[in-house]
Amino acid sequence: MIVAVCLNAALDVTYHVTALRPGHTHRVNDVHAHAGGKGTNVARVLHRLGEPVRLVGLAGGATGMGIEADLAAAELGFAMMTIAGESRRTVTVVADDDATLFSEPGPTVQLEEWRRFSADFASAVEAADVVVLSGSLPPGVPTEAYGELTSAARSAGAKVIVDAAGPSLHAALAARPDVVAPNAAEASATLDRPVQTEPHALEAAEQLAALGAGAAIVTRGRDGLVAAADGRHFVVRTPPVSGNATGAGDAFSAGLARGLAAGSSWPDLLADAAALAAGAVRTAHAGAVDPVIVADIRAHIVVEEA
Amino acid sequence: MIVAVCLNAALDVTYHVTALRPGHTHRVNDVHAHAGGKGTNVARVLHRLGEPVRLVGLAGGATGMGIEADLAAAELGFAMMTIAGESRRTVTVVADDDATLFSEPGPTVQLEEWRRFSADFASAVEAADVVVLSGSLPPGVPTEAYGELTSAARSAGAKVIVDAAGPSLHAALAARPDVVAPNAAEASATLDRPVQTEPHALEAAEQLAALGAGAAIVTRGRDGLVAAADGRHFVVRTPPVSGNATGAGDAFSAGLARGLAAGSSWPDLLADAAALAAGAVRTAHAGAVDPVIVADIRAHIVVEEA
Repeated sequence: MIVAVCLNAALDVTYHVTALRPGHTHRVNDVHAHAGGKGTNVARVLHRLGEPVRLVGLAGGATGMGIEADLAAAELGFAMMTIAGESRRTVTVVADDDATLFSEPGPTVQLEEWRRFSADFASAVEAADVVVLSGSLPPGVPTEAYGELTSAARSAGAKVIVDAAGPSLHAALAARPDVVAPNAAEASATLDRPVQTEPHALEAAEQLAALGAGAAIVTRGRDGLVAAADGRHFVVRTPPVSGNATGAGDAFSAGLARGLAAGSSWPDLLADAAALAAGAVRTAHAGAVDPVIVADIRAHIVVEEA
Repeated sequence: MIVAVCLNAALDVTYHVTALRPGHTHRVNDVHAHAGGKGTNVARVLHRLGEPVRLVGLAGGATGMGIEADLAAAELGFAMMTIAGESRRTVTVVADDDATLFSEPGPTVQLEEWRRFSADFASAVEAADVVVLSGSLPPGVPTEAYGELTSAARSAGAKVIVDAAGPSLHAALAARPDVVAPNAAEASATLDRPVQTEPHALEAAEQLAALGAGAAIVTRGRDGLVAAADGRHFVVRTPPVSGNATGAGDAFSAGLARGLAAGSSWPDLLADAAALAAGAVRTAHAGAVDPVIVADIRAHIVVEEA
């Protein structure tokens, strides 16, 4: 079983308008609202893939109720701890082919609330094979959060994937997660070094592994990804796809979790996850998966050991 | 006592961003949410003016709860009937001096819910001197709604102001409200005639009065307003003001309601309401009133009997 963690869950609202005109008034005829946040999207992809998954995290206020109602409607297994603060919303304005996103700040989490979540986490991951920690921390949650949760999950015998950046990723690395997977910009910000070329990315992956990760992957958008895993180096090239990159990172994390749970080899695991990510780019909604598209992309992915 | 009616209440959310860039992601650092909708804004202005006012209308879902919580925090007297649908939100993105508004459609009101509101309305207006009906009707509320409410309010001995347009205004006129006050564009759409010049506007006001209004006012933005009232014609000129016109119409309706409740003469009533509207343009938030600004503008308003 896979446990996905979403500490900064959101209600993702989409407004469809004919054209976005700054300074003007827009009547929105079409409003959609879905539970979101990176951990939630990871859980949604795994659920679509038929993987047993459970989402845990924090939610509060009327928006938190909206998030839980949507999770229940999606028949996704979840246990969100209720906090006093109001969960955030995101608003995406879709006009023609353009999407403009507005992202509210997360609710302030009380230290007592965080302690309660952290204490309950050990039992939440008791039956987990893999735990995925992904996304930003809401205000009030200590920077060390992903380190604490990584330690708890490892003590329970689960493998741990961390999709985070900056101080939050550093804290996780100290607790020795199995996989970290920042994108090039996040790796650059976290390590304070340029990560533009493939050699840069491989060096960054090596450095992240040296800091504590079993495997460190640096994703490079349409340029594929590189990985330093168990002392081996891989370069993965994906065929060109066009579409909306929102949610590709979460599909990638879902693919990594499935591969780790199945005990796949590194080349297979990386190629499967890369195919899911590229497939998500070609699919309209975050969390959606089209197996035919994914299989087609998978057949064109090249994995080289560097 | 003044009763303001808001059938399509909203939670007005404001996002402050540094710049609005279509196609990009914006982190919103500053989120404000306030109860809105035209009738709510009218009540808010009257409350700020120290006028006894009560807001009635429809609200539902988590957003309806947010609307009621904000009304309670503003210490505004209100009695919103709960509906099964979810009240709408508006999102205004403020960047530099530009405001970009996204307005969700209203909730669908069940016919049974509307009948219950309409039946309760007679007792809600029992103690009212003036009733203000303003704003759009949410889906499901019959076009005749403002006609029904106008009749009920008049039967209870209250004077009635209607700020509406199109079929909804036509339905109200048939029930002989005391004052209607569309802007030039609304008057043009309602009467299907051009309303660009001052003579146009006076003709439109006359026609609206002939259709059933005791007094018909056509507001013309920075060009002031005209009125046909009890067989007399007035032209009101306001000094130039710059700022945000959002909420000016609601401040105007509030001024009309206060003047009717006080039994002011037409010239005084029109000048007072016009000063409140122009003052609202110069004030940052809908529903805010600065008495010093309003008094200064009031001293420069010219009312001519045409």
